[in-house]
Amino acid sequence: MPTRVVDTSNSPYAKLRPVPVEEVELKDGFWAKRLNKLREATIPSQYELLENTGRIYNFRRAAGKEKGDFQGLVFNDSDVYKWVEAAGFLLASRFDEKLYSLVEKVVDDICAAQDEDGYLNTFFTFENKAKRWSNLARDHELYCAGHLIQAAIALRRAIGDQKLFNAAVCFANHILRVFGPDGKPGAPGHPEIEMAMVELYRETGDHRYLSMAKKFIDNRGRGIAGGDVNRIDHKPFKELDEIVGHAVRSLYLNCGATDLYMETGDKEVWSVLERLWNNMVKCKMYVTGGVGSRYDGEAFGFNYELPNAQAYAETCAAIASFMWNWRMFLASGDAKFVDVMELALYNGVLAGISLDGKEYFYVNPLADRGRHRRRKWFECACCPPNVARLVASLPGYFYSLSEEGIWVNMYDENTARLRFKDNIVRMVQKTNYPWDGRVEIALSLEHELDFSMYLRIPGWSGDTEASLNGLKISEEIKPGSYFKLSRSWNDGDRIELSFQMGVRKTSCNPLVYENLGRMALSRGPLVYCLESVDNTGFDVWDLLIPEDAVLQAEWAPNLLDGVMVIRGEGYVADSDWGQDSLYRALNPAKARKTGFLAIPYYAWANREPGPMSVWIRSTPRLDSPMQRQGDSSS
Amino acid sequence: MPTRVVDTSNSPYAKLRPVPVEEVELKDGFWAKRLNKLREATIPSQYELLENTGRIYNFRRAAGKEKGDFQGLVFNDSDVYKWVEAAGFLLASRFDEKLYSLVEKVVDDICAAQDEDGYLNTFFTFENKAKRWSNLARDHELYCAGHLIQAAIALRRAIGDQKLFNAAVCFANHILRVFGPDGKPGAPGHPEIEMAMVELYRETGDHRYLSMAKKFIDNRGRGIAGGDVNRIDHKPFKELDEIVGHAVRSLYLNCGATDLYMETGDKEVWSVLERLWNNMVKCKMYVTGGVGSRYDGEAFGFNYELPNAQAYAETCAAIASFMWNWRMFLASGDAKFVDVMELALYNGVLAGISLDGKEYFYVNPLADRGRHRRRKWFECACCPPNVARLVASLPGYFYSLSEEGIWVNMYDENTARLRFKDNIVRMVQKTNYPWDGRVEIALSLEHELDFSMYLRIPGWSGDTEASLNGLKISEEIKPGSYFKLSRSWNDGDRIELSFQMGVRKTSCNPLVYENLGRMALSRGPLVYCLESVDNTGFDVWDLLIPEDAVLQAEWAPNLLDGVMVIRGEGYVADSDWGQDSLYRALNPAKARKTGFLAIPYYAWANREPGPMSVWIRSTPRLDSPMQRQGDSSS
Repeated sequence: MPTRVVDTSNSPYAKLRPVPVEEVELKDGFWAKRLNKLREATIPSQYELLENTGRIYNFRRAAGKEKGDFQGLVFNDSDVYKWVEAAGFLLASRFDEKLYSLVEKVVDDICAAQDEDGYLNTFFTFENKAKRWSNLARDHELYCAGHLIQAAIALRRAIGDQKLFNAAVCFANHILRVFGPDGKPGAPGHPEIEMAMVELYRETGDHRYLSMAKKFIDNRGRGIAGGDVNRIDHKPFKELDEIVGHAVRSLYLNCGATDLYMETGDKEVWSVLERLWNNMVKCKMYVTGGVGSRYDGEAFGFNYELPNAQAYAETCAAIASFMWNWRMFLASGDAKFVDVMELALYNGVLAGISLDGKEYFYVNPLADRGRHRRRKWFECACCPPNVARLVASLPGYFYSLSEEGIWVNMYDENTARLRFKDNIVRMVQKTNYPWDGRVEIALSLEHELDFSMYLRIPGWSGDTEASLNGLKISEEIKPGSYFKLSRSWNDGDRIELSFQMGVRKTSCNPLVYENLGRMALSRGPLVYCLESVDNTGFDVWDLLIPEDAVLQAEWAPNLLDGVMVIRGEGYVADSDWGQDSLYRALNPAKARKTGFLAIPYYAWANREPGPMSVWIRSTPRLDSPMQRQGDSSS
Repeated sequence: MPTRVVDTSNSPYAKLRPVPVEEVELKDGFWAKRLNKLREATIPSQYELLENTGRIYNFRRAAGKEKGDFQGLVFNDSDVYKWVEAAGFLLASRFDEKLYSLVEKVVDDICAAQDEDGYLNTFFTFENKAKRWSNLARDHELYCAGHLIQAAIALRRAIGDQKLFNAAVCFANHILRVFGPDGKPGAPGHPEIEMAMVELYRETGDHRYLSMAKKFIDNRGRGIAGGDVNRIDHKPFKELDEIVGHAVRSLYLNCGATDLYMETGDKEVWSVLERLWNNMVKCKMYVTGGVGSRYDGEAFGFNYELPNAQAYAETCAAIASFMWNWRMFLASGDAKFVDVMELALYNGVLAGISLDGKEYFYVNPLADRGRHRRRKWFECACCPPNVARLVASLPGYFYSLSEEGIWVNMYDENTARLRFKDNIVRMVQKTNYPWDGRVEIALSLEHELDFSMYLRIPGWSGDTEASLNGLKISEEIKPGSYFKLSRSWNDGDRIELSFQMGVRKTSCNPLVYENLGRMALSRGPLVYCLESVDNTGFDVWDLLIPEDAVLQAEWAPNLLDGVMVIRGEGYVADSDWGQDSLYRALNPAKARKTGFLAIPYYAWANREPGPMSVWIRSTPRLDSPMQRQGDSSS
């Protein structure tokens, strides 16, 4: 039962199919550490929190096993489902009796809360039973149902679970009766059900679920889901021309629509998706891959509205972007989507969880004064279990398969056992990625085999070198593409890649006023930031770096669980502002030289609080000495 | 019947009382031009628009004189009232038969729409009659009533009108019956009624109106006005600790509370007002005096949330700030409030109307790409008649009176005929302010008189000189204060002031991340901006000015009806970005020198569209040559 995250094995309009989670083992590398932390710290602590905040109790209460009031927010069931999904992926990677028992217990609690007619939502029981399906715009019933279905599919694929899966199918069938061909019109205020229904179709082959997903998408823009921009209900899906509204809702809807496209091949849907993607990536995405810049409505802003200190950039939105880009990639095989996935993963998503795996960001600013700190939990706790299920599923994204061969999407120390056309192809990736750009991929084959290897060349790697069995490949290797190596492969064949890991200075389109005259530092897939704890003696917000400054990367084994830092020299003009005025006469300052140290953005806010900044002021080379005399003005 | 804008003549806790509009004549100066434009272009064209958009028709319809549907938005009556108020102030300044007839006609239409019980709102008639007072949070009935009362008081003071005044009193009495001591609890979603009720108390001496205002303010924070931050109903007024929510609503509420304070002396109210004022001025006000930085909710943002390109800064909010600061000044005599009034007036407010007096900004960004243009009207047309009534009332703010003497608050060519303790004191101000810092004030007196002259020294004038009858005054003259000259004054006494009119470079508190490494240019009360039409060959967003650059002011008689421009030299590193990507590798650029020209912010967007910016990138002096070698990074 292969645990594919999105199973496009039989999707007629998908270019690629994913490799099951259990076929790839991340070992001793960057993500292996994270997965261990997830298994040892995150998943157990989240379970405790789900219990302590009444989220699992709500199921027992609904089943009549406990007495009391419903606890928390109307969509709290979904947090439990996401945790189960995360646990499913972990069990797929490595079975673990203790975790399995815990999951079984939670599944029992969930299933006991289901009504005889299949309905399952712990808020809409007892006194609230009459309100079922009465307010699709706000009540998140279809959203929770979608997460139940996703969790059940993951668990079935991972460990052959049938209990939660049956519950999910029962609820899905209930939804078909309510909203299906003969049912009432439906569209959720918070999308999620769409991709779940398509996946359930993939899992069962039952076309009714696919039709249901299509109907939910087709029903948008008719006021059923609230009629407003924030619920992406202001227009029919096919008329969307700009990515707007609540970022997670918008992106989950796009996930569902991409899934629908892969099954139906509706070109109009694809062209909407491309339009929205271009708008997001060219006008509305942070350099960290974060999206949804606006606090109000947790929404996409106007084009080029990308404030730094006031960035919203919800962790779930970066996750949703990752999920959508994964689907866009499966549909097309275009490397540009994986570039965005990787950017979001290493920066916008990973910043959402602390190094110890127990604290979370909901909001991810790109500049801060030290007040924004990760928290153990939230009343609206969508982000923590969403990070958990994404990280748990990571082994499933490293490779994918097409008719022509094997695609290597991401790089990290791993071993894989892939099934390609009834053959077993074993891969061993040796690398210290993302700290080092060298990757060695060794193939083990039972017999010689013709196929192509598609190696992703990250968009940021300007000058990649590759060799095959020690011989340098002379063909042009284009950044932001898949480099195709077609041959008859033999056991022991060895590919070496070397991505350019120089420190990169990134500038921003000057239409983003906030970033004018600023640069961001990156290295490999990682975006860097300055944190005050590493930069004493000046305020990191004040630093000015000459555009042509020399920057050095340096391995710091004892810092932040081991990170590559960036060092350089800049200038600081000290200011003595307090909080007592907004404006004052400029006092031309003399800037002094200072060294600085930058750390990966994902690792910020894991030490003592203080100012942080991603976009650093920079200055071009001036073609004549600046005027130094303060001549009197008229 | 003196046309005081806020009549504190008998307010026990007011330090000052205003001078009637008709006692000051603005002549041939900066504002006289504006008043002429208002009289000749703005008021007639707004009348046409009020008719053409159904706003006056709505009154005839409500009176049964015309058939058809209500037109426009629920609060459209208020636009008509604000226009009447503006016309009232103009008539006070100079009677004009044609305008008078027009006003009479509009007043007749308004009054005919009133119900026998005093109720007057054209939306809540016929089919909507049953909804009266049913949704205080959203329906703007009390807001419209407040504007009716303000208009009626202005018209009565200006021309002795009794008809509209009686209608307003009737409606006010209706409101007392509904919400008064024995009535139901009331608080409006959009404040405005509070200051109107206090003013009606001042006009009539009837304490019931004062009590009504107090009750409306005391009722806040109980959910009656919607219960949300945006309606400033999240907390009782006295518990407000930060200025938040919809900017105009918040500031109108503060106006009402300040009016209440001046009548009751409630120190707790005053301390709330000071707290909110400090928060606004120290954390939430643009350098233009604009406020309400956030699009969503037309609201105040977080502290230091002051984006430039995405600034909201509604014209009405700058007006509301002017109105509130006027009241705070009357209460206290503190010059800091007049500094904010002047800043808002010459920049945030004045930018709201085109040079030809016929087009308006609702939103006032501090940086733009050329797409934001003034419009002839808006569906929600609060700003145009609000600008009109403020500019029309301007003569009323130049002077005020205390027990001790005469206060000169603002400067412009004018003659005044003030009544001070049964004496007539004539003043002639000769000045080319705000272009020139020299002001001559000549006094005409019927006989020698002991009193003090309080001369406002703007906060921005660092080195003011003053003389009396040609003799330099040697006392220290502090910026941001009233300079007091006490003596026995004689006919022909002459005061000369000379404010420092150098070009000022302003820096912003570095907690506003968007303005870090930027400067704004000002001169006198005017904030400047760069507009592309004056700066060919480079993008004004890209300009970089050394902090110690020399800047020159220069009179440009044919530009924008005559403005002082600022010239200087900066650097530009040309960029060739299009709209096709957000980020790219920084290409260290060599910046070339270029001259630039800045114009007053109020005059922007009156010529061909293009990029505009207030905050200009600046660079400090570096203490050693910048590194020029592009050494390889690791």
